Amino acid sequence: MTAPSELDDSFHVFDTTLRDGAQREGINLTVADKLAIARHLDDFGVGFIEGGWPGANPRDTEFFARAREEIEFRHAQLVAFGSTRRAGATAAEDHQVRALLESGAEVITLVAKSHDRHVELALRTTLDENLAMVADTVSHLKAQGRRVFVDCEHFFDGYRANPEYAKAVVRAASEAGADVVVLCDTNGGMLPAQIQAVVATVLADTGARLGIHAQDDTGCAVANTLAAVDAGATHVQCTANGYGERVGNANLFPVVAALELKYGKKVLPEGRLREMTRISHAIAEVVNLTPSTHQPYVGVSAFAHKAGLHASAIKIDPDLYQHIDPQLVGNTMRMLVSDMAGRASIELKGKELGIDLGGDRELVGRVVERVKERELAGYTYEAADASFELLLRAEAEGEPLKYFDVESWRAITEDRPDGSHANEATVKLWAKGERIVATAEGNGPVNALDRSLRVALEKIYPELAKLDLVDYKVRILEGVHGTQSTTRVLISTTDGTGEWSTVGVAENVIAASWQALEDAYTYGLLRAGVEPAE
Amino acid sequence: MTAPSELDDSFHVFDTTLRDGAQREGINLTVADKLAIARHLDDFGVGFIEGGWPGANPRDTEFFARAREEIEFRHAQLVAFGSTRRAGATAAEDHQVRALLESGAEVITLVAKSHDRHVELALRTTLDENLAMVADTVSHLKAQGRRVFVDCEHFFDGYRANPEYAKAVVRAASEAGADVVVLCDTNGGMLPAQIQAVVATVLADTGARLGIHAQDDTGCAVANTLAAVDAGATHVQCTANGYGERVGNANLFPVVAALELKYGKKVLPEGRLREMTRISHAIAEVVNLTPSTHQPYVGVSAFAHKAGLHASAIKIDPDLYQHIDPQLVGNTMRMLVSDMAGRASIELKGKELGIDLGGDRELVGRVVERVKERELAGYTYEAADASFELLLRAEAEGEPLKYFDVESWRAITEDRPDGSHANEATVKLWAKGERIVATAEGNGPVNALDRSLRVALEKIYPELAKLDLVDYKVRILEGVHGTQSTTRVLISTTDGTGEWSTVGVAENVIAASWQALEDAYTYGLLRAGVEPAE
Repeated sequence: MTAPSELDDSFHVFDTTLRDGAQREGINLTVADKLAIARHLDDFGVGFIEGGWPGANPRDTEFFARAREEIEFRHAQLVAFGSTRRAGATAAEDHQVRALLESGAEVITLVAKSHDRHVELALRTTLDENLAMVADTVSHLKAQGRRVFVDCEHFFDGYRANPEYAKAVVRAASEAGADVVVLCDTNGGMLPAQIQAVVATVLADTGARLGIHAQDDTGCAVANTLAAVDAGATHVQCTANGYGERVGNANLFPVVAALELKYGKKVLPEGRLREMTRISHAIAEVVNLTPSTHQPYVGVSAFAHKAGLHASAIKIDPDLYQHIDPQLVGNTMRMLVSDMAGRASIELKGKELGIDLGGDRELVGRVVERVKERELAGYTYEAADASFELLLRAEAEGEPLKYFDVESWRAITEDRPDGSHANEATVKLWAKGERIVATAEGNGPVNALDRSLRVALEKIYPELAKLDLVDYKVRILEGVHGTQSTTRVLISTTDGTGEWSTVGVAENVIAASWQALEDAYTYGLLRAGVEPAE
Repeated sequence: MTAPSELDDSFHVFDTTLRDGAQREGINLTVADKLAIARHLDDFGVGFIEGGWPGANPRDTEFFARAREEIEFRHAQLVAFGSTRRAGATAAEDHQVRALLESGAEVITLVAKSHDRHVELALRTTLDENLAMVADTVSHLKAQGRRVFVDCEHFFDGYRANPEYAKAVVRAASEAGADVVVLCDTNGGMLPAQIQAVVATVLADTGARLGIHAQDDTGCAVANTLAAVDAGATHVQCTANGYGERVGNANLFPVVAALELKYGKKVLPEGRLREMTRISHAIAEVVNLTPSTHQPYVGVSAFAHKAGLHASAIKIDPDLYQHIDPQLVGNTMRMLVSDMAGRASIELKGKELGIDLGGDRELVGRVVERVKERELAGYTYEAADASFELLLRAEAEGEPLKYFDVESWRAITEDRPDGSHANEATVKLWAKGERIVATAEGNGPVNALDRSLRVALEKIYPELAKLDLVDYKVRILEGVHGTQSTTRVLISTTDGTGEWSTVGVAENVIAASWQALEDAYTYGLLRAGVEPAE
């Protein structure tokens, strides 16, 4: 089930996505999901994967059984999570402790209370009995040959309330043989300076090997984790994409990236950091959450540049404007086009699209003006690459690319007494010298227009059959100067191998959608290599 | 235009949502959006609102002109952003500097280069000329009576490359009269310990009043901001919800919450922190981004607890499990997997609407079920009070409130060869025993439906003449489990004395809009005290 890592044991990257991360509101993992995530985390190269609480719920018990059989771990060791024994019994006779051993995990994390009030109010036992529970459970598991980490829950609040007792818990765990004692900011209220001071003191006073588990309630979980490392912690508990209860946990990816790239500390096997962006997105897919576009290092926006001011210098030296080379974490630099953009970003964008504008200053100037004017009217090109490319080509060639000429269209939505709706659209257009009139129905007026356009064009351009609308967004833009509001529509289209976005702006949603549809099909035909022939 | 704040000047909360925040990918603000956000930020109580770069783009020039006329600031001062003068000229003759003065802003932020390589490669001038540009521009603006803040771009990288030059820029600005010199981590690559060390050294070596501007590329922007404060910075630049280029900027809300609640530093006017959650969500609505559910302090999940292990202890003492009382920031604790919170809030809501549900447990249970079922279908009642009240009344009275009975409706949008559009709608309905058929035109299909409904009803219900649609929002909700996506429409309506919001959800935008319109008029008639008479 487990394989020794090529990394030494002096520093631990410990992932708890499958246990603490799964507490995030909206995440509900099946056993198959957990197995898939475990594979991704092992692929990334973390040292430890906390898989859940075997015995506490059947799903986690099954996960440990199947992981043992189905996964050949290359880097990680699988960890079972559980609690210290209950009060007034021995660890050997505690069912919950036995389930941890039966999970087959070679490493076990035990959660222990270290805040005096929690011992009294939540555990309802004495402070001394809690120390005995920690020592007895650790000794018992160590005697069974397991490696043991102890999570001191609510440690930092406990330390504030009663530092001597909090340290006594650390000592009890450490003296009983715990390999690491993990100080947990369970309610996430700490700031880095506080974490650093407490970790340094506890390390000096107890001599235990310390770890850190930070929650993100102050927005400082990554910094809190690094502050603990600065103070001497050598074990960091994180979750992929920062998933976790309430705001979330310390995010594995920026913590690992900071350790590798800013501290120069080797915490992953060779070459794995470059897989970080892909693995972050893959795990988001498994838990069925849209990957955060603005996540540090791995978000699609993490290395996207918009400001015209910067773009001119980025051309000269990208390192002046990026804190790291995005390739180091498997991400890429992108240039966005917006009305803040100047000439340099348009040139760069052209290059990205394979259109060299470098020589033609007058053309670039015209495109900049056109983009500014259109964005003032409500268009946005940073999210509509395909419409931007069509605009750019139109300026370069003096006229817009046309595969068809629309004479008129009409969309009707009708409510019926039974509450159902009928949507019908008719399109009249010219293509390759032929006048075509087509009508189609749909589940809404835009869908009906889309279908009527396909019906009209599919004989002349069979390539359109491959195209699919995959996303549709509407935004109402408030009127400026007391004029009426306008509507912006963004459409994403795919041909099975790529995806592109187009934009339309008009005084109503149907007309705006129509524009975005026209661009979507025009671009699809351009991509398919079809010659414009009218 | 500006009003003195009740806070003293010794610590500045400086918001740059409208300038740096607007650089976020996917944000594209109209002048009306910027005015709305400025009002929210002033309401929150920040000391300074950076509004944009007047002269650099027409939208920002217009924003300053309109803000001066239209907004009566209660707390904030409006700040214009611009650049030091160009090389080889005087500040007095620089157009861009003149535009800053012409904006009428009493406070000006100047961006200055402080990294030697940026001076040479991006500005293409000498290190000495750059110092002269800083000094000359600051002196010129100070001589015109403006307050001047200087943003030292790429300061921390510059300091690493050439600490003496970076400090020389700080001195040049400070000695020329700059009120604050802001050290910017422009590419966001720093960690808190680095920030703290550099700020402390620069403060000791230059004696200038220092500010901090942190970007979130390492996921540490909040911590970096606080580290600078720890080292003596007394001016923090942030953006609402952390919006900004690439990953984003230091998030205003956790920074302010940490200063007020963890540092005990008074940085907002009395009572404003309690508005934080509402204001965060309101700004997200204006920029048309879904509020982050997991944002520290203000996310809907920020104080959500999974019931189970800790449930009984939370009941005994919630403070054991929360780092702050959520009411301090206008948020609330939620227990998940339990409809207790749902029941309580529906009872509260009923009371708010003057409907006492306290005694009727069965009715409350029915409303909870109905809301859950509708929200699963895509409805949202948080933002649609009027639709919620209609739902609640329908459950309480056994049938929906009806002023009219719709037989059918139809909307037609037609494109004409000249590029203009015709929109026509027909409504057939019964009111007070009379069958009415009405047709009207509009600038879009929804507007045409709205008008046809008014034409149909205005003789019978003259009260409708006072109603005005003031806002209209559309959101496409992704399909779940492969089903088709649905459309949600939110409409805000006013009768001149109050405003209410209604919601509609359907398979297409026209049908969803119709539902929201029906609720809007029904609620308007209820508000006007009209008896339902059919």
